[in-house]
Amino acid sequence: MAGAVTTRNNKHIETVAGGGLLHRRLFLSSSLGAAGLALLRARPADAAQQDVPSWMRIPGQGLRPYGERSPYESAVQRIVAPVIGTTGSGSSRSPLEHFEGIITPSALHFERHHSGVPDIPPGEHRLLIHGLVDRPLTFDLSSLSRYPLVSRIHFIECSGNSSGLYAVDPPQGGAGALHGLLSCSDWTGVPLSTLLDEVGVRPTGRWLLAEGADAAAMSRSVPIEKAWDDALIAIYQNGERLRPENGYPMRLLLPGWEGNANVKWLRRLNVTAGPVMTKDETSKYTDLMPNGQARQFTFPMGVKSVITSPCGGQTMQGPGLYQISGVAWTGAGRIRRVDVSADGGKTWAPSALSDPVLPKALTRFRMAWRWDGSPAVLMSRAVDETGAAQISHRAFIAERGHAHRYHYHAIASWSVGAAGEVRNVYS
Amino acid sequence: MAGAVTTRNNKHIETVAGGGLLHRRLFLSSSLGAAGLALLRARPADAAQQDVPSWMRIPGQGLRPYGERSPYESAVQRIVAPVIGTTGSGSSRSPLEHFEGIITPSALHFERHHSGVPDIPPGEHRLLIHGLVDRPLTFDLSSLSRYPLVSRIHFIECSGNSSGLYAVDPPQGGAGALHGLLSCSDWTGVPLSTLLDEVGVRPTGRWLLAEGADAAAMSRSVPIEKAWDDALIAIYQNGERLRPENGYPMRLLLPGWEGNANVKWLRRLNVTAGPVMTKDETSKYTDLMPNGQARQFTFPMGVKSVITSPCGGQTMQGPGLYQISGVAWTGAGRIRRVDVSADGGKTWAPSALSDPVLPKALTRFRMAWRWDGSPAVLMSRAVDETGAAQISHRAFIAERGHAHRYHYHAIASWSVGAAGEVRNVYS
Repeated sequence: MAGAVTTRNNKHIETVAGGGLLHRRLFLSSSLGAAGLALLRARPADAAQQDVPSWMRIPGQGLRPYGERSPYESAVQRIVAPVIGTTGSGSSRSPLEHFEGIITPSALHFERHHSGVPDIPPGEHRLLIHGLVDRPLTFDLSSLSRYPLVSRIHFIECSGNSSGLYAVDPPQGGAGALHGLLSCSDWTGVPLSTLLDEVGVRPTGRWLLAEGADAAAMSRSVPIEKAWDDALIAIYQNGERLRPENGYPMRLLLPGWEGNANVKWLRRLNVTAGPVMTKDETSKYTDLMPNGQARQFTFPMGVKSVITSPCGGQTMQGPGLYQISGVAWTGAGRIRRVDVSADGGKTWAPSALSDPVLPKALTRFRMAWRWDGSPAVLMSRAVDETGAAQISHRAFIAERGHAHRYHYHAIASWSVGAAGEVRNVYS
Repeated sequence: MAGAVTTRNNKHIETVAGGGLLHRRLFLSSSLGAAGLALLRARPADAAQQDVPSWMRIPGQGLRPYGERSPYESAVQRIVAPVIGTTGSGSSRSPLEHFEGIITPSALHFERHHSGVPDIPPGEHRLLIHGLVDRPLTFDLSSLSRYPLVSRIHFIECSGNSSGLYAVDPPQGGAGALHGLLSCSDWTGVPLSTLLDEVGVRPTGRWLLAEGADAAAMSRSVPIEKAWDDALIAIYQNGERLRPENGYPMRLLLPGWEGNANVKWLRRLNVTAGPVMTKDETSKYTDLMPNGQARQFTFPMGVKSVITSPCGGQTMQGPGLYQISGVAWTGAGRIRRVDVSADGGKTWAPSALSDPVLPKALTRFRMAWRWDGSPAVLMSRAVDETGAAQISHRAFIAERGHAHRYHYHAIASWSVGAAGEVRNVYS
């Protein structure tokens, strides 16, 4: 059996890299995929299975104006980490290991608040655009809805995502606990360029101060080039109006840029000549380098990927055929490929990318893997359309040091022990 | 001003068809779009606007493990229509006029139940595949999760959607009330072809009987070619596990085919030589033609579009620039173009399609429109990649008659009256 899995139809699915990685054609074509997988888990039918189950003996729940998920799924929750001693500050992470596809359920989108979620009556909220402009203007939700809208599927990632992996010893947790300050939605909004054209930006206007309507007045300076490029004032998320914790009724969306700069509950854009050096961009969100200097305004998120199944905290169900599934993303545009290794990086093979592969959006990748029961290390390495590729944890730390807090995007590794236990490791 | 809207920058956005339709380049490029729209609704800033609103004076709501939408949005609900005298039978429609983008919020996905939503403990549910097969097998949720998964964004439309428009007089209602048996999700599941290969379909096996685990045991016959093509056993919807009303824990997904055949709570696939003629496909879901004969097994949904904004029941807010927004879809693959008319079909112009344009998925189209305050009739006409195009209501009824109940997909029309009232009309 070495080198292949023999299927029920006596077809062979060849291995393509060490540790039992199988060719991605399993995922790429339904006819090739239908190759008889030699029974992963299915069981022979028995007569009892044809009995009518109890839930078919009574009529079910009636129609409802607004649905809820199954109560059997209620354990799937965001991983909440408030900042002790504050009111409403902190973060909650998306439980990535429970997701499939590329859309994050809005109820499970990650959160990062600096003073909680304000309760904003949508009819009373205003967005002011002023500063170095010819015509300061205010926009409300209904006026924004009259401008040409665009829809795009984009990820948002907190720049502090995965920061636990800057530690000397690898932290333990699942994909969500370690990498879950990451979500992806179908956003609809007004291109910010349209609104800037309305107010008439003066030649001296080179930056924007974006201020949120939360109690922290969370504020960031943003280069105006991003506004002319692809920034949106988002008013819809996954078809419906923004969720409160995502900036209801309107937020700044800077596709591919660190989450913090995508200011929620946006109430003010002040066109300025330079960055304003707000508390939020000086006390936080700078990148401390080993030489003691800090990089500031490092907005784009790097190319990155994480295997969400299997992942830390899980236990394998014995040797056999498994599916490796994960997500990849880059602030630079589209993901070009994601390679997977099952032998700690000695050999790699390309995974199957699931359509659609969209710019600045999560891309789902999958790989079939025959685990033989011996220790293994699973890794994924994403390459984006600019050619940028993830590097090893060791090389990444050599460049940035352990005191860094933001923009971690090295190759992530899960070890699988002989007893099937999965743990986060540096590799 | 005839023939163009002059913007603040003295650029002109030319009209492209009668009734004030403007060129779609407004939506296609942020730099072209930023052409100064001469103030649709924005207001000059005033000093009071810079006051700190009350919701910034107190800390907000803290982090939550599972989010909810804003209470200010609670009026956005499915339009519920139970069948009187039944328990849990009937339908609820998606309020399309409240949506943007292409993803339907799972809580607002349309419903069509024949005996309510069963309460199924996921660990106890089984899918049996038997009949003309070599190896009858049962699959549970955890076994399905071990097979290669695929993710795809697809619409589901009830074949009875828009059936009110077969009536002699045009029914009144919004886009959701008239056309809302339509939703679109990011589905993840196992290709059915994989499972059929596992059981080994015998050469005589040409159809599948698909049975749901609801109290109606809702059952449909499906040609096996669809299973070999692109059918899925779906287990995730918009990132999370299926919602109860969408078949939790597993459903049949037949991309582009009438919703009813996408059997929910799927418990059994019986491979048969021919269709079984279940109660659900003989008492319902057949297409009665004017000659008294009925077409049966008319699965693919036709090319179709509907303008969701503005739509019936709404009132225009005076003359000025508006955005026409809507969705188009086809069971045949991708939408190629959507033309819009503002003069009842005398002249047409192509709308802007929002990326991504995916096969068998909703496609969002938009058009800018300068309403001059006089009566108008808005229409949309979709063309798909096979060249199939929507035809007029008149031509459609001439072919099918008024007694038809399913697969309505003619061009839909909204009239705008001089007082701004929007109504459904035949045109």
